[in-house]
Amino acid sequence: MNKVKHLIEPDDLTNSEIESLISKGMDIYDNPKNYSDVCKGKIMASLFFEPSTRTKFSFDSAMIRLGGNVIGFSDASTSSTSKGESLADTIKVMSFYSDIIVMRHPKEGAPKLASMVSEVPIINGGDGGHQHPTQTLTDLITIKRFKGNITNHTIGFCGDLKHGRTVHSLIKTLSRFEGNNFILVSPKELRLPEGLKYQLTKQYGTKFTEVETLDEVMDKLDVLYMTRIQKERFFNEEDYLRLKNSYILTNDKISNAKANMIIMHPLPRVNEISYEIDDDPRSVYFEQSRMGVFVRMALITTLLEEAK
Amino acid sequence: MNKVKHLIEPDDLTNSEIESLISKGMDIYDNPKNYSDVCKGKIMASLFFEPSTRTKFSFDSAMIRLGGNVIGFSDASTSSTSKGESLADTIKVMSFYSDIIVMRHPKEGAPKLASMVSEVPIINGGDGGHQHPTQTLTDLITIKRFKGNITNHTIGFCGDLKHGRTVHSLIKTLSRFEGNNFILVSPKELRLPEGLKYQLTKQYGTKFTEVETLDEVMDKLDVLYMTRIQKERFFNEEDYLRLKNSYILTNDKISNAKANMIIMHPLPRVNEISYEIDDDPRSVYFEQSRMGVFVRMALITTLLEEAK
Amino acid sequence: MNKVKHLIEPDDLTNSEIESLISKGMDIYDNPKNYSDVCKGKIMASLFFEPSTRTKFSFDSAMIRLGGNVIGFSDASTSSTSKGESLADTIKVMSFYSDIIVMRHPKEGAPKLASMVSEVPIINGGDGGHQHPTQTLTDLITIKRFKGNITNHTIGFCGDLKHGRTVHSLIKTLSRFEGNNFILVSPKELRLPEGLKYQLTKQYGTKFTEVETLDEVMDKLDVLYMTRIQKERFFNEEDYLRLKNSYILTNDKISNAKANMIIMHPLPRVNEISYEIDDDPRSVYFEQSRMGVFVRMALITTLLEEAK
Repeated sequence: MNKVKHLIEPDDLTNSEIESLISKGMDIYDNPKNYSDVCKGKIMASLFFEPSTRTKFSFDSAMIRLGGNVIGFSDASTSSTSKGESLADTIKVMSFYSDIIVMRHPKEGAPKLASMVSEVPIINGGDGGHQHPTQTLTDLITIKRFKGNITNHTIGFCGDLKHGRTVHSLIKTLSRFEGNNFILVSPKELRLPEGLKYQLTKQYGTKFTEVETLDEVMDKLDVLYMTRIQKERFFNEEDYLRLKNSYILTNDKISNAKANMIIMHPLPRVNEISYEIDDDPRSVYFEQSRMGVFVRMALITTLLEEAK
Repeated sequence: MNKVKHLIEPDDLTNSEIESLISKGMDIYDNPKNYSDVCKGKIMASLFFEPSTRTKFSFDSAMIRLGGNVIGFSDASTSSTSKGESLADTIKVMSFYSDIIVMRHPKEGAPKLASMVSEVPIINGGDGGHQHPTQTLTDLITIKRFKGNITNHTIGFCGDLKHGRTVHSLIKTLSRFEGNNFILVSPKELRLPEGLKYQLTKQYGTKFTEVETLDEVMDKLDVLYMTRIQKERFFNEEDYLRLKNSYILTNDKISNAKANMIIMHPLPRVNEISYEIDDDPRSVYFEQSRMGVFVRMALITTLLEEAK
Repeated sequence: MNKVKHLIEPDDLTNSEIESLISKGMDIYDNPKNYSDVCKGKIMASLFFEPSTRTKFSFDSAMIRLGGNVIGFSDASTSSTSKGESLADTIKVMSFYSDIIVMRHPKEGAPKLASMVSEVPIINGGDGGHQHPTQTLTDLITIKRFKGNITNHTIGFCGDLKHGRTVHSLIKTLSRFEGNNFILVSPKELRLPEGLKYQLTKQYGTKFTEVETLDEVMDKLDVLYMTRIQKERFFNEEDYLRLKNSYILTNDKISNAKANMIIMHPLPRVNEISYEIDDDPRSVYFEQSRMGVFVRMALITTLLEEAK
């Protein structure tokens, strides 16, 4: 990660940089005390121009567990940009008040712009429907922890695969690692964009299978990645009524899944995973939240070391 | 407190646990430096789904003075529950980001539910009109500090005794300690609920006297606990006009009170205690706010020690 | 600063106290590590009854870099005053939860009132259009750093000089130091108030020159202090159209300025300084933001030492 000062999108990281962040995250998970003072005296500015409790608290917790401190806001209305100041000026000044900046912004590209004026590392904590690289890192460290590695898996994605940066980003990144192939489960109108499939097939030879129901593929999956599917995304009421239950996970639906399959979800969930699944040892979505803190600790400390 | 992992209501604590929290709180008050590092590296999540500056800052200050750190929000609108996530999921995830959780929630029972899914101790910082156990502990440590003990007192409660968890909770808890008896001063329509009086009389032999004005009982009180009385709680304008001044404390009204009586109030006050009283050495309501920090420090460190 | 416990307005400080805060600020700028633990265990309450990201974060960052901690809010709606509590009661209680209080409040005089009840030092972080003493200190330390001293300068102020506490406060304070004189650039209707000019001329013999355009005086300035000029402040559209470009700084306008002139601005800017100026070595407004942290560190640590 020698030349990377900011993390705006997963493609800013080489495969070996990703692997090193995951290893470091696992080492922090195993030996948290070794890292409890590495950011002593450092300040992270946590600038959430759009609210996101989970992401914000995961970062805040990460920085504090490294011995660092956090300043920031969780709501654009209290920021100077409400006085007509440009984002560039806001970021430039914030970079004097802190040693590293995490930002979430409703506008695509805002973190990229920020990285061009900031004197300190910028981490993109989500920019509109665009990029959310630390969610991808969280997903990867979770696969690493529960499956031993991030290669050679059959990974099912279920739900709305058309929208949703989380899914696109994870598929793109997993495609860069050897032997991963994808089973895509969604209604026809919510399939993964053709352009993305084409690009990945061309670039990495990625293999996709597309189906409409979970049942027909459940027994083949090493990883099942669930996402929410919103009623208003369907083209018509009829399709919605016909298909809605196909995308809600129940004990019944996973009865023939592999014993070591893992069930992931970026959270928050609404109803797409029944609560009964929480007790199944294959469900790891809460542990996934937990792992997010460790990989963010790895990222923060790495970026700060390089910024010295 | 061996089996208590959470504090949802005062009844979660035995008498000896209450006494030990108060003693520890007094020891922290006397020797704050001995405790300034005991929570180093620990994170308290301070989740205020309903705003309350005073309670939140008292807890935040407590955690920081123990050497710990705080993350959190003071407004539900910035939390994930606004995206339709269940409280149980929110709490479960927050329990990965922190070592202890303080929460205030507008719905009765929310902290109890939280305690059923959390991996870390939950402290109820107030749930609707229901419970607010650390206010009760604050009241008790204040009586301890200024009266030497929490037994054998004649305690007057004045104002709206029908509503208001603070009063109910404190009366219930004081009833569990020897020799306390109560003088209840309120308009007839705002008297302590019959059910509560019946229960306490039956269970502890608690003694109550009920009157309508402060004047007739002032000289008998060891402790006077004032509360606000809202105009809209009266049944009719006539009663309101007739009685309103009976429940506003002035220098004149306390002229025949005992020299060592103490005047308490949970704050914020509106006009039920005249500002002139602030200079009377018997007024301890500001010191009561101060003591809240120390008993919360005792609680946090006790729960964290037990959670090890 | 022996008798000063609070900082409500610049006039609370003697010249030698101002000089010592600036020196200490410069020493912190040069040797930040010497100060990284001086506020260990101390809590600053940061009470922003009116939002101001920049000022709040500058203070928060200052306190954290001194090793201290911060509690607070950035929005009055989450404070107890929304329950009808008096500001005096709120401040009194907050002074038990913290070791020093910074407050911004929309009402003039609120910090003064606060200083009368607080048990800990109060720093005024801005009260309406009234006072903002740490902005003045920030401006002074910036002049000190870039010009070597805060005496004997020709300082131009440009924009709306009628409103705006920043300009009034800085002119008043600079008038107290030897040899400073002022060139005031503004439309006629937005000139510095006559009363202020009269007072300063009388008291310190301060010299003012008043012009309508920057061009006619640019080559005479040691310091150019830009401020925003709002369209609605003009008396008529015609004047606005005629004059608006006179108050927007461009490379062209500074072509004949002194090589060592410095360009300041309290930020946020809207359009009164073209972005092209950012690359000119004479522009120091971003560095001015940075210096604000150091002079606030000097102030916090000085007030805390005296409060011991």
